[in-house]
Amino acid sequence: MVHGIEGVLGDNLIDLSYESAAQLERLSRTPAAALGSCRHKLTEDDYGRILDTLRAYNVRHFAYIGGNDSMDTCHRIGQLASANGWALQVVGVPKTIDNDLAFTDHCPGFGSAARFLALATRDTGRDLEAMATFDDVTILEAMGRNAGWLTAASTLGKETEDEAPHLVYVPEIPFDTARFVHEVAGVHRRLGRVFVVVSEGIRDAEGMFIGGQQADTGDSDTFGHVVHSLTTGVAAYLTDVVRKELGLQARFLRPGLIGRAMSACVSKTDREEALLVGKEAVSLLAAGGTGQMITLERTPTGSYGCQAGTVPLVDVANAEKLLLREYLNTAGTGVTPAFFDYALPLIGGALPPQARLEGRRVAAIARQDVP
Amino acid sequence: MVHGIEGVLGDNLIDLSYESAAQLERLSRTPAAALGSCRHKLTEDDYGRILDTLRAYNVRHFAYIGGNDSMDTCHRIGQLASANGWALQVVGVPKTIDNDLAFTDHCPGFGSAARFLALATRDTGRDLEAMATFDDVTILEAMGRNAGWLTAASTLGKETEDEAPHLVYVPEIPFDTARFVHEVAGVHRRLGRVFVVVSEGIRDAEGMFIGGQQADTGDSDTFGHVVHSLTTGVAAYLTDVVRKELGLQARFLRPGLIGRAMSACVSKTDREEALLVGKEAVSLLAAGGTGQMITLERTPTGSYGCQAGTVPLVDVANAEKLLLREYLNTAGTGVTPAFFDYALPLIGGALPPQARLEGRRVAAIARQDVP
Repeated sequence: MVHGIEGVLGDNLIDLSYESAAQLERLSRTPAAALGSCRHKLTEDDYGRILDTLRAYNVRHFAYIGGNDSMDTCHRIGQLASANGWALQVVGVPKTIDNDLAFTDHCPGFGSAARFLALATRDTGRDLEAMATFDDVTILEAMGRNAGWLTAASTLGKETEDEAPHLVYVPEIPFDTARFVHEVAGVHRRLGRVFVVVSEGIRDAEGMFIGGQQADTGDSDTFGHVVHSLTTGVAAYLTDVVRKELGLQARFLRPGLIGRAMSACVSKTDREEALLVGKEAVSLLAAGGTGQMITLERTPTGSYGCQAGTVPLVDVANAEKLLLREYLNTAGTGVTPAFFDYALPLIGGALPPQARLEGRRVAAIARQDVP
Repeated sequence: MVHGIEGVLGDNLIDLSYESAAQLERLSRTPAAALGSCRHKLTEDDYGRILDTLRAYNVRHFAYIGGNDSMDTCHRIGQLASANGWALQVVGVPKTIDNDLAFTDHCPGFGSAARFLALATRDTGRDLEAMATFDDVTILEAMGRNAGWLTAASTLGKETEDEAPHLVYVPEIPFDTARFVHEVAGVHRRLGRVFVVVSEGIRDAEGMFIGGQQADTGDSDTFGHVVHSLTTGVAAYLTDVVRKELGLQARFLRPGLIGRAMSACVSKTDREEALLVGKEAVSLLAAGGTGQMITLERTPTGSYGCQAGTVPLVDVANAEKLLLREYLNTAGTGVTPAFFDYALPLIGGALPPQARLEGRRVAAIARQDVP
């Protein structure tokens, strides 16, 4: 299907057996969805067209790749076929950088996006250290509307308390702007610099997105203002808050889709597991299975390993796995060692080590008066 | 010197001979300035303190790493010592991601930052293709206040006309908002998606930074607005322009410092040449040289190679090398093959190949009526 279920609705199906072996091998190193993605939410109006296409092409096996919405689509396609007497096996293949599918230890895609964020935060944090007298506060916006998994992963390159990120804010913890300002000021007093990572979807205690309010400028032709909408982003908003409330220099970073597409940051573990769940889906269909999503089950003891399992689509389609509270510290602004244990293997293990100079001072030899 | 000349002024000098060999080796894979950077512009008030420190530590060799401002500092330190009878050899070591130092083929730092942008643009462009029905326009903001070298480098992963980026805008070409809107609309009509890369420092024919005007909201406590200042960024501004003028979905990407710090995107060529210019600087001082900046001179024919040369600091300190007009196409919104010849070796050669599916359609077998 090209562009997922839209390919079925629009009669746009391709035969991957015509692709060269070299191309297919390269797919594992190519970002984005090679088959295209979609955001189409099925309606009953679509059902006739879908059944028509399944029959026209004699489709008997249906594998669908994605997150919660995709698993819902996959489940409903299975039900639709069944209710109409069309013998169809359906299987869901997990893939979401948000890592919020239930019943699986983690989701393919997450490990690589997490690796990008861990590298970007560590490396840019070093840049901020080097420029100690320049920018005081850097706010990096991470993807994640509902789940804070990626924001938490920004900590994975951190070795000491003073390294970036100093504060993280996730959607699971209600955001309080006054407390944020207080916490930023505290880190700044201590270190002279602050590196903050925020999820794009942080919200207040009432569930309102932070910085999401619509400004009424009364003049739609004026380009002199940016409305603080979600499209502008919460990091831009909070940067403004820091400047105004604390009088500090602040800048924001918004890598956005770069964080999930950057091929140089792929986690080897993630790539291997993405192939694994695909192969398992085909095996399950070949064995006559249906109505399941492939899962990743972590080896309970010893060094990291995963094997494939399954979960009924009906269960996974209506569930969401948010960041576990036990993975965040008491304040909710940092992670626990348990999160490192969980996430570090997924990004491919500890990041490559970097230098940190001892900084032994030179002793003055002889001080003379300037003539 | 820790934090450059501020280390001299603040008596903060370290002895690198105490660092372990392993740490020093890791430096070549560690982002940011391990010795710290500064933005201190020398004044005559500093001179006494500098001479005092040079004498106190019996400093006879002075190597200074950086861009135009740093070369100016280095040159002035040399003049200061000479005018005061202190025998001091000075040498400048080029390093700027902006690539705007004159008299050198290119600058260490540029190749790696350019590689990040080439990868980020290609890979995120693939993501945009995959989501064809989602976001219409993506605007990526690249570093570069005066020079468009990095923005031009965003094209280096592009193999066909339809791949990202579709339009680039650099500071060297006066920016016209109406023309920008027209060009974006044109690409959108043709492809249904537009990927734009803009330098942070683009400006209009009068030299005013685009989106740089200060908005007067009359209420400094209101967080409902973002002033379109340079700290918010030109990409946020142009995203707003696209939405309002064309009614298209648009989003902006602002990797900012990630683009120069991301250790996963280091160009092998760049790393080697950064080591080369440092070693050459030491050799020059050991041979009694002074008042020079080390340069990179490209082997004129055959496969890519560089050797070190020198240029008088006095010449380089007051010059700036902007993006050559011959590297941009007639419209100024894309690059020429000559730019690829210049820049591709610097990012380490062609990017790793990726898959692009042939997309051969499945033929329908038998179309039946839906019961």
